[in-house]
Parts: sequence; structure tokens; C-alpha cells
Amino acid sequence: MAGERIFLDHASGGPLLPVAKAAMEKVLAGPGAAPGGGHREARESREVLEHARKQAAEFLGVDDPERIVFTSGGTESVQTILRGWGESAGKGTLYVSEMEHPALEAAVRWLEKGGFKVVRIPVDEEGRLQWKKVKPGEGPGLVCIHLAHHDLGTVQDLKEAAVFAKSAQAQLFVDATFGAGWVSLPKGLDGVDLLAISGHRLGAPKGSGLIFIRSGFAWRGQAEGGRQENDQRAGTENLPAIAGLGAALAEWGKSGEKIRNTAGETQRTLWEGIFSKVPTAKLHGPEPGPGRNPAHLGISFAGLEAETLALVLDRVGVAARGGSGCVTREMKIPPAMKAIGANPEEARSLILFTLGVASPSLDVAASANLISEAVKRLSSALPS
Amino acid sequence: MAGERIFLDHASGGPLLPVAKAAMEKVLAGPGAAPGGGHREARESREVLEHARKQAAEFLGVDDPERIVFTSGGTESVQTILRGWGESAGKGTLYVSEMEHPALEAAVRWLEKGGFKVVRIPVDEEGRLQWKKVKPGEGPGLVCIHLAHHDLGTVQDLKEAAVFAKSAQAQLFVDATFGAGWVSLPKGLDGVDLLAISGHRLGAPKGSGLIFIRSGFAWRGQAEGGRQENDQRAGTENLPAIAGLGAALAEWGKSGEKIRNTAGETQRTLWEGIFSKVPTAKLHGPEPGPGRNPAHLGISFAGLEAETLALVLDRVGVAARGGSGCVTREMKIPPAMKAIGANPEEARSLILFTLGVASPSLDVAASANLISEAVKRLSSALPS
Repeated sequence: MAGERIFLDHASGGPLLPVAKAAMEKVLAGPGAAPGGGHREARESREVLEHARKQAAEFLGVDDPERIVFTSGGTESVQTILRGWGESAGKGTLYVSEMEHPALEAAVRWLEKGGFKVVRIPVDEEGRLQWKKVKPGEGPGLVCIHLAHHDLGTVQDLKEAAVFAKSAQAQLFVDATFGAGWVSLPKGLDGVDLLAISGHRLGAPKGSGLIFIRSGFAWRGQAEGGRQENDQRAGTENLPAIAGLGAALAEWGKSGEKIRNTAGETQRTLWEGIFSKVPTAKLHGPEPGPGRNPAHLGISFAGLEAETLALVLDRVGVAARGGSGCVTREMKIPPAMKAIGANPEEARSLILFTLGVASPSLDVAASANLISEAVKRLSSALPS
Repeated sequence: MAGERIFLDHASGGPLLPVAKAAMEKVLAGPGAAPGGGHREARESREVLEHARKQAAEFLGVDDPERIVFTSGGTESVQTILRGWGESAGKGTLYVSEMEHPALEAAVRWLEKGGFKVVRIPVDEEGRLQWKKVKPGEGPGLVCIHLAHHDLGTVQDLKEAAVFAKSAQAQLFVDATFGAGWVSLPKGLDGVDLLAISGHRLGAPKGSGLIFIRSGFAWRGQAEGGRQENDQRAGTENLPAIAGLGAALAEWGKSGEKIRNTAGETQRTLWEGIFSKVPTAKLHGPEPGPGRNPAHLGISFAGLEAETLALVLDRVGVAARGGSGCVTREMKIPPAMKAIGANPEEARSLILFTLGVASPSLDVAASANLISEAVKRLSSALPS
């Protein structure tokens, strides 16, 4: 295949936003002093750090930058939030679906082993959380939801979640590692007590992420040692990554709506293009529109095995993810596909096509052609 | 002060090695695919990742790169090792001094709260661990030592530590976050079961680090979720930082001896220069030589307060660290100064001067002059 590559696996990793790259390179070329210190070089690093924190606060629409803690990425963000809440609460109830990302699910199970109760939130056939079917549990509670689902693209209703949390006397944690930027957050993070972001899905560097902890929320930092990040996360600050994340979030604050709209159009035409050529293709999760992350298509091709199809796609020039975005060893099929009641054949054939900020230049017609070509090649190679 | 700045706080943070910067920039300019995936872009990222892992294995002199797990830095490395050992062992005894870095000490206390026994290793007046005074405890054991001390520069005797560990039927964890590179590691990490490295003290990027876990060692990864790093550390790999770390370690493998020798000479002449001008200056920890990290001088100036002196040093053009390299809120004086029996006045006046790989170009005479000028300025400003 001599043609240009079509990259549709941005949720796993993609190129940096130019502003993020420039901000990183500036720090990488500098003296590299740690922000914690009294000398001039340290003070200059501290300015870079706090500038990024302000950029993050502006992106989130919150007034208190000091409630933002920079982390090494999405997994740390999610796990430090849950463990930190658990350590502070001591006991209580977690409200969570059965289709959360393994980083969140693992932390939930860790707390469950430590004595916490877990109440599962059921979902409908498009992955929307069904709040009316959840019964409040005991003790201090934490409602854990995603902003947009990593396999289904489903955007959750944060208002409904906040209403439930209030009624259950629980607090609300939004795992925005798969949705931030691509899906608007409520103004001032209204109703949200804890939030986790992964940098690289926003065109910010890998190794960057953050958590927001509402002022007054009882929480305990998990990385202990030095006094960085207001004593909330020990370890020398990863200043180049933090500067890159700040710059990327500032860009999203400015151009987010345009990026979302462009991605939404690409998403719709790509799905229509694929479906017109491969009538057996089935989109899981909500239709393109406000209910779906505009950067995300999760499509099954019944009868084909996802990882094999991904390899054929790669051969024809399309990089996509076969199977769930993130699975653990024991998972035979993605938990989300089970949760929405997809049949096993569909579940095994799920391919994720995810867009990035560089995707507006995507040749949608060529992409749909190549995807259909791959599906036909693999189908014809299999015994009928 | 119009002159050039003299930067002597490399242990906190310093410039990147040019090879590390180049390796990072190459990755930052690329497609940014995550290494976990079947498509071409993912395979190319995987090659970068595994190349860095091989570079790290070569630096450590170990045959099995897959026993190396990349982390987000020193604090994560140390804490994940201790918590991972604790989770796997369930109970047992930790052997540790009272002057370890807070990242290690915090993890020790966390395990102690969880029921582990802690046996403290006494130290002599230069910070050397006194193995003959330690009594073996019960159950599975873990001996936790530093390669070189962050406040005293003391290089520990790994052979003696390994002999003790064996006699106590314990295993040996070496926290090399403050000494790797600057102090030679035993060939093939002989006798060492676990090792932690922080990248930025080697001219590698901030946000990079690694752990080595001896094959067969019972240990449990702490970041759970995705299946990265052979299921030992979940989270999208920080590929630019990892590539930078690999390149830096390769450079150290090649030029380490030269870097160490040059630093050792600078260290000796700088200390002699300071002492000749400020006779009240006192070097803590061992004399320059094989017993001391060649990049490290920990000097007290009795009668002066460290943080104030550091500010005056900054004013005359010298960036250094006042007080311990890393302290927690409750520490009034650095634990190491207490452990070696330094008097409180000395303990409160400790300044750390730390060299980096760029320090060979240091103007030692000018540095000693400026340091003595700062000491005299502050002394004369104080009531006699």
C-alpha cells in the first residue's frame, strides 16, 4: 500500500497540538530548575508551573487554580482520586457502572476489597446511565461516572448524575479522561466534586494529566514525599509536560467549539460513508450528535474478529483500534458491549475509529473506501 | 549582579543531556501513536519503547530488559516498589534507616500502619549504615537503602547490605534515585532485588524514571488499568520521556566514568576553595572520594540559617539549595543531620551544592569566591 496513511486511533495516542509542542520545547531547552526552591531559576520554573495551572483553571471554568493537581496521566488521575477519597472516607458506598475503564474499575475493586460497598449503575442499550434504577447505599458515598464512554462514545448527563448524588448524599467524581475538550463540561464544573483529565487525548503531551478537587472535599494525596503541588502530589514536577498541557487547554478554551463541530461533521460523514458501503456495519452507542463524543466511532462488523480486521485495515493503510480501547487480561469481550446487551458476535468485532485535532484534514471518502475494502477482503478470506 | 549565573542545584533539577533532548524532540515531532496496538504507527512506537528498555538494561548491566518498568519519576518508583512488595508479601519486616528520603519514609510508614514491622538501621557520623547493629526481624523482609544519600552524599556499601539481607532472609531494595550514574552500580546488579531510578538527576527528562524488579521477585504493580509495561504499570506510556531516559542512560554507559571523574575533581576543588575562604564551613558526610557522590556537597555554615543564606547566594549569582533536598512539613531539621548527630545549629545551616553533567565548565574559583562573599554578607548583617 503506497498511499498516505489514515490515522484513526487518536484515543490511544496522537500528535501534539503545535502550541503544546512549542510550550514543551521551550521548557526542554531551558535550565530545567525544579519549581520548588528560592533561587531565580526555581522562581522562573514556578511561573511556568503556575501559568499552566491558571490555563487549566480557565479551561475548567473554576476560580481556584490551587484545587488543580498535575499528574502523570489519566490512570494516575483516576486512581489517585479514588484511593485518596477512600483513604479519607474510610468506609462508604461507590456508585459505578459495570463498563467503566479498567483504571477506574481496578480502583473500585481495590476499595471493595478494603470494605467499601459498591452499587452498580445499570445502563440502557446505548450506554446511558439509568439513574432511576439506582438505590442509595450507606455511609459516605462517591458517584463515579465517565464524561464520555471510551468504547461507546456515550455522553453522560452530568446534571442527572449530580441530582442523584445529592439525593444519595454522595459526591460526584467525573472521569473525563476520555471526553474532556471533546464534550463540554458544565459551567464552573457545577455539581462536580472531583474530575480527572488525561492530557494526551487533547493533543497535550503523554505523561500529562490533572485532577480537580473541589475546595473542602476530604481527599488525601497518594504520592507522598516532597511537598510539590501544595502537598497533594509528591515528586519533581514534570514541567515540560505540564507546560504542554496548559498550552493545549488554553487552545481548547479558545477553539474547542470549532474543533468539536468539525469533528462532529467528520464523524457523521465517516459513519455514513462506511455504512453506505458496508451495510452489516453497526454503530454502537448513540448516533452522531450531542449524545456522542464527536471524536469517536465504535463500529462492529459482525462475523469478523476485531483484531484481525484491525490488521487488515492496517495493511490497506488505516490505523484503527481493534477491540476495546482498554481491556484487561480476563476480559473476553469489552464490558461495555456486554453491558448494553450487544450479542457476542458484535462484541468481538468492535473497531474504534477515533479522531484527533488534526483530523479535519481527513479524506473521509478515501477512509470509508479503504475501510470497506478491508472488510470485504477479510470477509472473502473467511469460509462462508 | 550582572555576572553569569552559577547553577549548583542540579539534584533538584537541571538541563537535559543533549542526547536526551534530541531523543525527546524526535518523538514529540512524530505521530504520537501509543505503543500498544497492531498498526504500523503503534509498532514504530513500540520499537522506540523497547529500544529505550534495552538501553536501560545495558546501563544496569542486566540481561532481562522486561524486568524494567518505566515510571513517572523517582517518587513513583520508590513508592510503587514498597507498596507493591507490601501487597505481595502481606506481612513482614522492613529494614530502613531513619534518614531516608521522605518518598521512601512515607511508604515505610504506610506499610507500618498496615501491620508491617520496621527495624531501623543506625548510621555512623558520616551517614554510613551500621549493619552489625541490626537485628533480623520476623517474616518476609525487605532491606531498603539508598545508593547515595540525598543530603550527605554518603555512598552505601551494597555488598555489606546484600550480606545482611541474605543473613536476615530478606531481599534488597536499592533506592538509586539520588545516586545512579554518579555512583557505580554492582555488575549485573549483583545482590540487588529491586532498584529505583529517577531520570532527571541523570540529565534525562523530568517525569521519567524506572524500576528494576529481579526475575522471580514477588511484587505487584500499583497502577492498574491498561496492560502497558507487561501488565506491571497501567497508563499510556510517556514515550518522549522514556526515549529521553533511554538515550541519557546510554550516554552514561558510555561516558559515565569520565563524568564521575570530572565531577569528583570539581567537587574537591570547590570544597577546598570554599573551606579556604570560610573556615567555619563544615562538610557533612564523607570527604570527596569514593565514599561520596561526586556531584554532591552538603555544607553547613554554623550561625546562619540555610534558607536565608540560599537567598543571599541567589543574590550574588549562585543557585543552591538551602536545607535538606526534600523535607516534609513536620521536619524542623533534616533527619539525616539528626541521624549523624550534627548539632542543631549546623543542621539548620545546611546548604546543598549539587553538580550536573554540564558542570565541568563550572568556574570553581569564581563559585568559591561568590559563596564566601554571600556567607560574609549574611554574617555581617546579623547581630554579633
